[in-house]
Amino acid sequence: MSSLATSGIGKRRALAQKDKTNTAYMERRREIVQAAGGVFKHRGYRGTSLADVAEELGTDRANLYYYVASKEELFSAVVTGAIESNLAAAEAVKDGPGTAADKLRAIITSLMLSYEEHYPVLYVYIQENSTHVGASSSEWEAKMARINKRYETILVSLVQDGYDDGSVRNVGPAWVVAFALLGMLGWTNRWFDPNKSKASAAQVGATFADLVMLGLADSPKPPTLP
Amino acid sequence: MSSLATSGIGKRRALAQKDKTNTAYMERRREIVQAAGGVFKHRGYRGTSLADVAEELGTDRANLYYYVASKEELFSAVVTGAIESNLAAAEAVKDGPGTAADKLRAIITSLMLSYEEHYPVLYVYIQENSTHVGASSSEWEAKMARINKRYETILVSLVQDGYDDGSVRNVGPAWVVAFALLGMLGWTNRWFDPNKSKASAAQVGATFADLVMLGLADSPKPPTLP
Repeated sequence: MSSLATSGIGKRRALAQKDKTNTAYMERRREIVQAAGGVFKHRGYRGTSLADVAEELGTDRANLYYYVASKEELFSAVVTGAIESNLAAAEAVKDGPGTAADKLRAIITSLMLSYEEHYPVLYVYIQENSTHVGASSSEWEAKMARINKRYETILVSLVQDGYDDGSVRNVGPAWVVAFALLGMLGWTNRWFDPNKSKASAAQVGATFADLVMLGLADSPKPPTLP
Repeated sequence: MSSLATSGIGKRRALAQKDKTNTAYMERRREIVQAAGGVFKHRGYRGTSLADVAEELGTDRANLYYYVASKEELFSAVVTGAIESNLAAAEAVKDGPGTAADKLRAIITSLMLSYEEHYPVLYVYIQENSTHVGASSSEWEAKMARINKRYETILVSLVQDGYDDGSVRNVGPAWVVAFALLGMLGWTNRWFDPNKSKASAAQVGATFADLVMLGLADSPKPPTLP
């Protein structure tokens, strides 16, 4: 494709994306993003090209360019969708019924399932975003940082709520506990592959949840009744 | 320095490093590596140059070149020292007295202290080595991978020993538990800075240890005696 044609498509794309009333365009773009999620999952991030996504949708690359500029843009859109849905899930758990301890357990298991559902997209994101150091260099990164911060805040406040209502054992600063949970989960990017793992995401999540809720030290036996 | 001079120094360095009987050379190199650890800590990895290390030692860069070829080589040497000492500490704990639960606690707290002691070198290493995917591309990386694997194996076998002797609650596959512990610890590379953290490494380690040993769910109260 000539750079002139590309530039023409770029302008038409920019116009279409500005027009929020164009629901057909938005819907088609959502379909493309969803299909891309599937292709990333199947072929890995590096193994995926825009042409692969086009093929999955039974269209061609030129048509795709009307909706997305690059594989990177598709990837960002897939990550955004996954992270927003994780945040929505955590908000729902936070505002739902149960003790703070129940809610922490629910968040741990559902985040692990989300890593599997969106594999490998969330892990690629974690790897790309491997240091929090430095200012976010793009609007998108700044948005992601806000969502991640909000997610962290929910965890910290759940731990603190549990300390306050007595449903959670106070083992130290609530934010250190929250970062411990996020750490054991986030670190799975280095070893969990749903296609190869000897443990499913559900098993890993249940193990993590039991580990941090029940603890490894067998609790002292209650006094024997006489 | 001309490339000829550099190459001359390179040859002399290679010869000196091969001669394991040259204890004065080896000792001086150890001093340089130790000083580099301090400079990395003080100036950060990116902010450190060979000239900074030379200045710290009251010598010049040309002299340093006789012992090390580059900042990267110094960094590798510092990492090697730190990782080997972590492994030695874990081996000592494993072979020492106490229950498996006690030993897991000791390893958690000492690894956190080691991140602080060697800050930021171990974190830079974790960040550089951010995916386990792919073959190790150098002899050094292969050696590090062996040490890390051995460290993991110690943790897995301690969890399994605890399962077997009843000192550790069985919450799931021993390797998943070991990876959870390594995850919460390793993830601190993203947020723990001993110069800024609101919690010291000792506090963080104690919180992690209590979290995974005692658990967050307040244990059910023992039955009241009549």
